[in-house]
Amino acid sequence: MTNFSWKVKKTNKNNKARTGKISTPHGDIETPAFIFCATKAALKSFTTHEAKKNNTQIILSNTYHLMLQPGSELVARHGGLHKFTGWNGPMLTDSGGFQIFSLGHGSVADEIKGRKTNSKHKKTLINLNEEGALFKSYIDGSTHMLSPEKSIEVQRNLGADFILVFDECTPYNVDKRYTSDSMLRSHRWSLRSINAFNSKLNYNPKNGSAGRQEIYGIIQGGIYRDLREESIEFNTKKINTFGIAIGGSLGSNKDEMKDIVHFTSSKLDNTRPVHLLGIGDPRDIWDFVADGIDTFDCVSPTRIARHGSALIKGKEGKINLKNVKYKNNLNPIDNECNCYTCKNFTLAYLYHLFSAQELLGLQLLTNHNIYFMNNLMKEVRSSIDNNDFDNAKKKWLNS
Amino acid sequence: MTNFSWKVKKTNKNNKARTGKISTPHGDIETPAFIFCATKAALKSFTTHEAKKNNTQIILSNTYHLMLQPGSELVARHGGLHKFTGWNGPMLTDSGGFQIFSLGHGSVADEIKGRKTNSKHKKTLINLNEEGALFKSYIDGSTHMLSPEKSIEVQRNLGADFILVFDECTPYNVDKRYTSDSMLRSHRWSLRSINAFNSKLNYNPKNGSAGRQEIYGIIQGGIYRDLREESIEFNTKKINTFGIAIGGSLGSNKDEMKDIVHFTSSKLDNTRPVHLLGIGDPRDIWDFVADGIDTFDCVSPTRIARHGSALIKGKEGKINLKNVKYKNNLNPIDNECNCYTCKNFTLAYLYHLFSAQELLGLQLLTNHNIYFMNNLMKEVRSSIDNNDFDNAKKKWLNS
Repeated sequence: MTNFSWKVKKTNKNNKARTGKISTPHGDIETPAFIFCATKAALKSFTTHEAKKNNTQIILSNTYHLMLQPGSELVARHGGLHKFTGWNGPMLTDSGGFQIFSLGHGSVADEIKGRKTNSKHKKTLINLNEEGALFKSYIDGSTHMLSPEKSIEVQRNLGADFILVFDECTPYNVDKRYTSDSMLRSHRWSLRSINAFNSKLNYNPKNGSAGRQEIYGIIQGGIYRDLREESIEFNTKKINTFGIAIGGSLGSNKDEMKDIVHFTSSKLDNTRPVHLLGIGDPRDIWDFVADGIDTFDCVSPTRIARHGSALIKGKEGKINLKNVKYKNNLNPIDNECNCYTCKNFTLAYLYHLFSAQELLGLQLLTNHNIYFMNNLMKEVRSSIDNNDFDNAKKKWLNS
Repeated sequence: MTNFSWKVKKTNKNNKARTGKISTPHGDIETPAFIFCATKAALKSFTTHEAKKNNTQIILSNTYHLMLQPGSELVARHGGLHKFTGWNGPMLTDSGGFQIFSLGHGSVADEIKGRKTNSKHKKTLINLNEEGALFKSYIDGSTHMLSPEKSIEVQRNLGADFILVFDECTPYNVDKRYTSDSMLRSHRWSLRSINAFNSKLNYNPKNGSAGRQEIYGIIQGGIYRDLREESIEFNTKKINTFGIAIGGSLGSNKDEMKDIVHFTSSKLDNTRPVHLLGIGDPRDIWDFVADGIDTFDCVSPTRIARHGSALIKGKEGKINLKNVKYKNNLNPIDNECNCYTCKNFTLAYLYHLFSAQELLGLQLLTNHNIYFMNNLMKEVRSSIDNNDFDNAKKKWLNS
């Protein structure tokens, strides 16, 4: 019935870094891998065809955005997200929980990553209770209920290969009591999500998934080690999912984030692929791969491209093409990069495009950043396979 | 020395429609052909690589915009526009005259095409005399002089295969006396342009053109037949250029435009390829091809794409993807179109992209419209080669 499988190929000696392969009905994912965000069923300024050409293995879309616009039924009528977006490779959808609570509490995203900025988002969460979350559409103000059952129904319609259980993404600015209560409710929601998923009540043979989907559980517990342990226990012993994601608040700064991820992943074994939600800084990826993380997702590589930043190796991590110092520079972003942008265009041309506000600039940087991330993951994998991880990491960070 | 040539392959029996081939050092152009506008050295939301894949034969850039930003010297340091833009096929640059006077008089573009809208542009022309045009940069207010010699120098630096003589693009709202004086000055400017071009004073072996360029003259005379005749006489007898363009005001409405183009082109023979400046409505193209026009250029196909319009066959000419009637439509723009957009995406998906303000929508419609125009020109050429022009035109317009 299912074509899904997961196997670990090689494990590093000094740490938990590992290569593996996730197989899906839409193809294989060599891990560690990066998942690019097609939030609203589009990679913003990039076609799925070009993403494929840039070695992209898997993309994700967002349940919350797509249930509001264009509606998951319309996507199902197309035969699922693969047909809708023209992407024939593996896909994942999140459960909608993150966005509900991000828009509900203000910007959870900032808090999870330890940024203390003020929210620009309107609060749209009306009520949160055992049943689920009642919220207003940011598009037209209409009222919607998102529950575990509804999230799974929507994700069935969307038809991605991998779906997530519905959870509350607890923010950083709540106390341990709230974090614990929220975690326990998310566990109950996980059970309801899995029950809805297994019941195939929402199985829709007309859409692209045709029931061929697998589900990920999510480890909660915020910054509290005992809660993380409790959630790991729940996710690995009480439920049985294909994969497991690390979610919730990861602290108020990078050190805290690394500590929480390190602690959590150290308790996980090779049984399931492990996904780290919402993290995408190339410099952090080396650290988290060492902790045994198999997949990552983040809007960052494509978002910073649209703001003029190109990813580069080394501690600096990126350069901004709006900087006048590139005005007359006839070199590419990176002489050693084989992406279309670096093979064909100079820094001076890219600077010109951003100065002249040409949309092509966003596309060319998106191209570079997508290629860059996929190339980074390829280097990471090959260093593990060649017993050269620590050396490769050091070399990369000091480029 | 030069790899340029022009030959007529087949001429229609009932009218002047003809197929031909323009050869350049960067490849051949099968005519009739459409030239896409990379005004500021970018096809707005499309890579030159994708343009090539969509059968694009030739693109153009604008002297006026590029001399101000990023400056033609920087382009020359790259080895010319071909290297700068990553486009390895034939290119053309205009002389800058159109933009100077368009921005100088208000929107000449609207008047040339008979639209009576008010200008949104600031007037930047300071002074116009025998020497040339003094104007302010729309970017930083700095003062620049564009003369025939300067235009050729800039176009040498840009290094396109085809360049244009410097002219004043006379608007519609001037009298016959002004049109006549302007035409005579443009003729004198043509002689100076050609002299500068031939002297190779600005020959720059470091740039991509390496002197391998050819020049087009421009027929002026506005809506006055006697002036058009005088300008044709000048352009065909007094100077000797590779190609010839029809410029200036073409009247205040479509009938007047068609009448002027018909009259002007009827006086031209097969000696040179004939370019019609700034016209790109697919429905008009059939008429103008019948008059013997070999190449067309217009921002329209890519501009309307960014505003949500997709070109279609038939009298209607286009559809707007922002229209809610496409919200649930699972058909492509055109079932018979083989472009990437039509082969992969539904009207409902495109509607969703424009609703969600996803940049990808602009790209996918640009893709369709570029493919559409190139396919139109291919159908036009093949109908001429197969003695089926009139029938093909009727069929196309009634699709």
